[in-house]
Amino acid sequence: MTATPARITAVDTYDVRFPTSRELDGSDAMNPDPDYSAAYVVLRTDAHDGHEGHGFTFTTGRGNDVQVAAIGALRPHIVGRSVQELCADPGSLSRDLIGDSQLRWLGPEKGVMHMAIGAALNAVWDLAAKREDKPLWQLLAHVDPEWLVSQVDFRYIADALSPEDALRLLREGRTGVAGRETALLEDGYPGYTTSPGWLGYSDDKLTRLAKQAVADGFTQIKLKVGADLDDDIRRLRTARAAVGDGIRIAIDANQRWNVDEAIEWTNALAMFDPYWIEEPTSPDDILGHAAVRRAVAPVKVATGEHVQNRIVFKQLLQAGAIDVLQIDAARVGGVNENLAILLLAAKFGVPVCPHAGGVGLCELVQHLSMFDYLALSGTTENRVIEFVDHLHEHFTAPVIMREGRYRAPLAPGFSATMREESIAAYHYPDGTFWVADRAAQGGTA
Amino acid sequence: MTATPARITAVDTYDVRFPTSRELDGSDAMNPDPDYSAAYVVLRTDAHDGHEGHGFTFTTGRGNDVQVAAIGALRPHIVGRSVQELCADPGSLSRDLIGDSQLRWLGPEKGVMHMAIGAALNAVWDLAAKREDKPLWQLLAHVDPEWLVSQVDFRYIADALSPEDALRLLREGRTGVAGRETALLEDGYPGYTTSPGWLGYSDDKLTRLAKQAVADGFTQIKLKVGADLDDDIRRLRTARAAVGDGIRIAIDANQRWNVDEAIEWTNALAMFDPYWIEEPTSPDDILGHAAVRRAVAPVKVATGEHVQNRIVFKQLLQAGAIDVLQIDAARVGGVNENLAILLLAAKFGVPVCPHAGGVGLCELVQHLSMFDYLALSGTTENRVIEFVDHLHEHFTAPVIMREGRYRAPLAPGFSATMREESIAAYHYPDGTFWVADRAAQGGTA
Repeated sequence: MTATPARITAVDTYDVRFPTSRELDGSDAMNPDPDYSAAYVVLRTDAHDGHEGHGFTFTTGRGNDVQVAAIGALRPHIVGRSVQELCADPGSLSRDLIGDSQLRWLGPEKGVMHMAIGAALNAVWDLAAKREDKPLWQLLAHVDPEWLVSQVDFRYIADALSPEDALRLLREGRTGVAGRETALLEDGYPGYTTSPGWLGYSDDKLTRLAKQAVADGFTQIKLKVGADLDDDIRRLRTARAAVGDGIRIAIDANQRWNVDEAIEWTNALAMFDPYWIEEPTSPDDILGHAAVRRAVAPVKVATGEHVQNRIVFKQLLQAGAIDVLQIDAARVGGVNENLAILLLAAKFGVPVCPHAGGVGLCELVQHLSMFDYLALSGTTENRVIEFVDHLHEHFTAPVIMREGRYRAPLAPGFSATMREESIAAYHYPDGTFWVADRAAQGGTA
Repeated sequence: MTATPARITAVDTYDVRFPTSRELDGSDAMNPDPDYSAAYVVLRTDAHDGHEGHGFTFTTGRGNDVQVAAIGALRPHIVGRSVQELCADPGSLSRDLIGDSQLRWLGPEKGVMHMAIGAALNAVWDLAAKREDKPLWQLLAHVDPEWLVSQVDFRYIADALSPEDALRLLREGRTGVAGRETALLEDGYPGYTTSPGWLGYSDDKLTRLAKQAVADGFTQIKLKVGADLDDDIRRLRTARAAVGDGIRIAIDANQRWNVDEAIEWTNALAMFDPYWIEEPTSPDDILGHAAVRRAVAPVKVATGEHVQNRIVFKQLLQAGAIDVLQIDAARVGGVNENLAILLLAAKFGVPVCPHAGGVGLCELVQHLSMFDYLALSGTTENRVIEFVDHLHEHFTAPVIMREGRYRAPLAPGFSATMREESIAAYHYPDGTFWVADRAAQGGTA
């Protein structure tokens, strides 16, 4: 008797919102009151092995329902698929989802629909890694380069990165992988912290948290800027005084400026030796970033958390517009597209320093940087993963920091699984937290 | 007694889908089976003047529900607003919607969320023009240049177009407006037709429709290309034989190619003297379009129907990547953003030839080109509006073509109002057409 092959039986979605806007955690020049949220998806199977695939899009509150609806629109492509085939070739789903000509009209490959695709694909990778009983970074670092290349969509980037280029980079990257894996497990991967630098914090809190960051072992911190120049000068002076000259201070404008403003403002802060200026202007403005980079050197230009896909990253690299490429695990089309972006960065020799924070972004993106270190770039030099100490308690395998470094996660999967109690409490609008909250505010529960 | 000012009382949304995939109308290399659809919105008021504001996003079927959900997410910004204030300054709503920091995370200014903003703003402009008892083109052509400038968001484009530039262009554009309005009312605005050129059509049908297009007075037709080179060579030869040398034949690849393919394929078709190659590659690939343009001249490069916002158009112009700029009335953030794009095109001296077709896109975009002719570019030279003879019967004021030219619409508003019977029939999945269709196919009605 032949066993029936296991199938994906359900694509369950959840609108999960945390009331972070009530503190000033996460406030910046463009995001004064985010409610960190996840449009969360669980792939269920009939494999009876206890494994589910978890993924999500991070949002900042309103519109999380739209994002959930977009993930739901992918259901017909996923339910009923063979679990084994899907996990053996997540790229087949990537091609189907990105190639759905009707859904494609809503992008193409950008915004709500593309982030939904990323959430679904990340859930597949989570499931695949769990079934292999490996953390995703390790699965990616151990598989054949040929298979990794098969997972990349070269459409629209082949003029800058061919499959042959990718294979060469991955083969070269494999040299010395065992030694680096030992080092990673021993020492972790360097992080930097944004926790001191939110706009809403007082100077005293900034000083205290900046000193704490150094004491915790971080060698780089980040400050939000862009709301008021005099405030920024004072805050950057305060931060520099708190950490001394040996610590890198990155600054982040969160797209607040036009090109000319970005140049003037950054140069006005140059006396405090900022390491990079992040998101100086629109993430869509490739030529604008190039102009800013030319005008603010030696301050480096960093961007990427809102860059919509590999095609825009390709151009940022082609135009010489960035010194630091910031991937985000949940903005583009999942692991498959982030492999393309890591390969582009390697081809152009630009270091990748991921965006993280939000809900679960640290948990996800650490896997991609660790793979990059082990089996692609081969180095952590000038590479750091953002760390923000928010909301990790809601995950079953939260990130672990030691001396300012991410420990390599050992749990199988993509570290995407949110605790069931957290989903039950923060499911919007019917979770227990939100019901109690409305009751406390005198509304109807 | 002071009258209570009229307010927006409801933002009603409708998922309207037409079963166009059952014919091969609308088939191209990337869109084999579109079901032309509208995520439709009606702004209702308590003004008791009989006026409503109508708008929509065009989609190709699946995901239209996601688009409807996105329009719904804008409701809290719109319901309760003063009708008079809103119509006197649609830009105030544009700033609120684009500036909603939580919704902004889902773009920014791209994809599903941005198209939703465009639908809502276009509905406001429809309402404003109805209240002024003017077709929108005429309202735009008659208002003060200073007010038009106030409707434009210069963020992220100020390095290429300042408010002072815009005011100068609009003041210069005003010279001779009365004479051009007379000419427009007399002669209409030139169109071109895509009706002969869909990929799914036989050569006989192509020949017949191409000859018919010339007989109807069109001086330009367009063929879809990009699926098979040998077929394209045969089809282009067939079309050229049908229309002769005096008629322009544009070709449209609908993003099918990588940069290198676009160059090779276009050059392989050059012997048939195509006027422009449209969407040769990804709409996100500014540098790619520039490379294609350098390599395929004298064939012109056109793009825009999928260009997400003014920031990408700015760069296409800055990079010298396009000869023809194709606005779409329902892709970007509504009339306000299209004003910015028309101004950018005027600044760089690039002609605007709108994308249309789909559902209602001809109805909308004619207003923008007619405004451009009357009060900005001042010319129709090398400018044509796409015309596709589909689905016009569903609108209360459908476009009127005469001798290959769009007649100036005379009905007040933005020509966006769909007939109530059409909405009742094609509302998905509960409209009378869809219910009967499922019954006929043996499903449950």
